[in-house]
Formats: sequence, C-alpha cells, structure tokens
Amino acid sequence: MNELTLVVGSKNHSSWSLRPYLALAHTGQPFREVVIPLGQPDTASHIAKYSPSGRVPALQHGELVLWDSLAICEYLAEQFPEARLWPQAREARAVARAVTAEMHSGFAMLRTHMPMDLHARKPGQGRAPGVAEDIARITSLWKDCRSRFGQGGPFLFGDFSIADAFYAPVVTRFVTHGVELDAVGAAYRDAVLALPALKAWTEAARHESPLAR
Amino acid sequence: MNELTLVVGSKNHSSWSLRPYLALAHTGQPFREVVIPLGQPDTASHIAKYSPSGRVPALQHGELVLWDSLAICEYLAEQFPEARLWPQAREARAVARAVTAEMHSGFAMLRTHMPMDLHARKPGQGRAPGVAEDIARITSLWKDCRSRFGQGGPFLFGDFSIADAFYAPVVTRFVTHGVELDAVGAAYRDAVLALPALKAWTEAARHESPLAR
Repeated sequence: MNELTLVVGSKNHSSWSLRPYLALAHTGQPFREVVIPLGQPDTASHIAKYSPSGRVPALQHGELVLWDSLAICEYLAEQFPEARLWPQAREARAVARAVTAEMHSGFAMLRTHMPMDLHARKPGQGRAPGVAEDIARITSLWKDCRSRFGQGGPFLFGDFSIADAFYAPVVTRFVTHGVELDAVGAAYRDAVLALPALKAWTEAARHESPLAR
Repeated sequence: MNELTLVVGSKNHSSWSLRPYLALAHTGQPFREVVIPLGQPDTASHIAKYSPSGRVPALQHGELVLWDSLAICEYLAEQFPEARLWPQAREARAVARAVTAEMHSGFAMLRTHMPMDLHARKPGQGRAPGVAEDIARITSLWKDCRSRFGQGGPFLFGDFSIADAFYAPVVTRFVTHGVELDAVGAAYRDAVLALPALKAWTEAARHESPLAR
C-alpha cells in the first residue's frame, strides 16, 4: 500500500485544506500530514515543492500528486469505496455533487468577508453586501438536503459525505462571525462541530502562530 | 428513458453553460435545450424556474434537477459510461479531475478580464494584473497533460474528456483576446476549435442579441 500524505495550509485559516482532511480522516486510512504556514515570506516556495498549482491542499499517494480539494475527495471516494464518501443512491449522490460543486466555485462574498479563523470570535463582523444572500442560499440548501436526503443521520445526506466536508469550513465561519441559524441549520452546525476529526483539526490549530497579514 | 433537458445561458457569453453542453453532446444522447438570454430584466426570474442555485447551467433528467457545470458532467459520466467522459486509467482520471476542478474554482483574473465573447475579436485587450499568471498556469498544465497523458489523441488526455469541456471556453477567450500560444497550446486550441459540438454552439451564438450591459 502506498503511503498517503496530505499537504495542508495553516489549520486556523485554510478552509480549502480542511475539506479533504475531513474526507481522508473519514476513510480511516493512516496518513502523513505536512502543514505549511500561510502568509509567510517562504509560503509560496514551500507550497511549490508539493503542489503544481501553487496552492494547498495537495495529496501524495505513491507517485501520484493531486491538487484541488474536490479532485482529492473524488479520488479518495474512488480509492476507498467502503468509506462511502458519496451517498450510495444515484439521485442523492448527484445532488451531493451539485451542492459540493456550488461551494467549490461559489459564495465569493462570504469567503471574502467571513474568512475562516477557527479560534477567533467576531460576532457581527463581515456583513458586507452580498454576504446575507450567500448565507440565505447556504441555509436554504442545507434545509433542502436535510429534508430530502437527511433521514438516517444528522448530516446533509444522512451519513457523513464529501458535501459535509465542503460545508464544514462554512459552519466554522458562522460560529466565528456569530451568524444565527434556524433550527435545522443549528442542528446541522452542531453535528458538524461534533465530528472528531474537526475537533482534532481545531485543537491542532490552537498552537499555530498568528497569520502575518 | 427519461428526457434530458439542458438549460443554458446566452451562447456567446455563458462559459459555464458551454462545458456541460460539450460533455452532453459527446455522449450522443438526444437532449432538449432551453436557452436563457443573460443580462435581461427577467433573466433572474427566468433562471429561477429551472435552477435552485439561481445560476445556469442546469440539467433536468426526469424528476431530477441538477445544477453546476461540474456536477452535471460527473452525473453524465456516471449515467453514460460508454461515452468515457473521464479517462479510463486511474491516474489519468485523477489528474483530469484536478485540472477540471482547478478551472472550476480558479483563474478569476482571466475570467474577469477576458470574458467569453465568441464572435468578438479584441486582440490585446484584457491584460490586467494577474491575467498573465493565469495564462501561464493554463498553458503549463495543458503542456503537462499533453506530454503525460495525451498519447492517442489531440486532447488533454488523448481522447476527449470533461477536462476539455472545461478548458474549451478558455480556448475561445484566447482566440477572442488574441493570446499567442506555443506549439503545444496552439495544436490543442485547434483540436478544441474543431470539435463539431463547439462549432454548432458557436454558430447558434451568431444569431443571439447582444448582451445588455
């Protein structure tokens, strides 16, 4: 078996890195981790050693180097089918990919104005134009997924899936920025926050140096 | 068999819509098309009838409604495996997903300053800061894919794949804005421009009204 190495950015801030970390942790496979501090003078050259796109995350599996959070998750789903990283039912899987891809390319206002910052608390901050619309769309799709596919578990499609890995950073942004949620949203948030892998990641982030801005 | 309907935006401008159109055309399946003119007073309400994210493209397959260009392509790859929308080899498929996902979430400067505009010719325009870096990364990854996986065909992974569907709009941006390419890039551009489905899409775009700005 080839060794798996996940290259991630600072855990307090790298929302893109957190996604494949949660998916990989869910597989139960042993893996090595390389954490690259973001915002440092040597960050770009450090990342370039691992990732052809110049961005984290990256996954090494034997000779194969993969970049991009979604491509890494798709690869893990293929390699470790027993982990069921996508829903098993055709329609649920298709919708799970749609909400995941929507997060992957979208919500620019939210991402800009409510950056992930795990141990910070900034209630009320980040309410720039467009952010409310992003929040409304996210909570609406959470509700839709929970009601259509959420039987059998507390996650968007019942059991944990890649869709949850993609929305977990958003959950932490909502906590950091004090975004109030309705009952469905709050229950989903709490289910994500209770993930052991998210707790471990958050705990590791506690010991990081602050981001140089 | 359930009917397939692809909902797309104006063909001159909707780079996101062109991607799944090329993938769907490649399957050879019959499909219905709904074209929604972008930039009109009723565009948002028109799209909302078809797409829960408020964005095009969307795919209807029987009762199932899917949005997002990448999720639609993944669904088509699953539903029509004989079309081989992803490379068959594990490593090639993984890298194809990485370059596709990189396009899906990235290249913001290129997308902003060199918008798709199929029948326009604006040589030299769009050279804003950051655009050259996006172009360099794209041509570098084209070269990498062609040299590692491009045997057996003129496309990034030899035969046509979803990766080509995702880079086809970029090819047209390069033509519109007169971006010069090296030999590998020029050959790849020409292979994409020769796709019958891209020619049909481009021809249909000729009859569209100009975008209201």
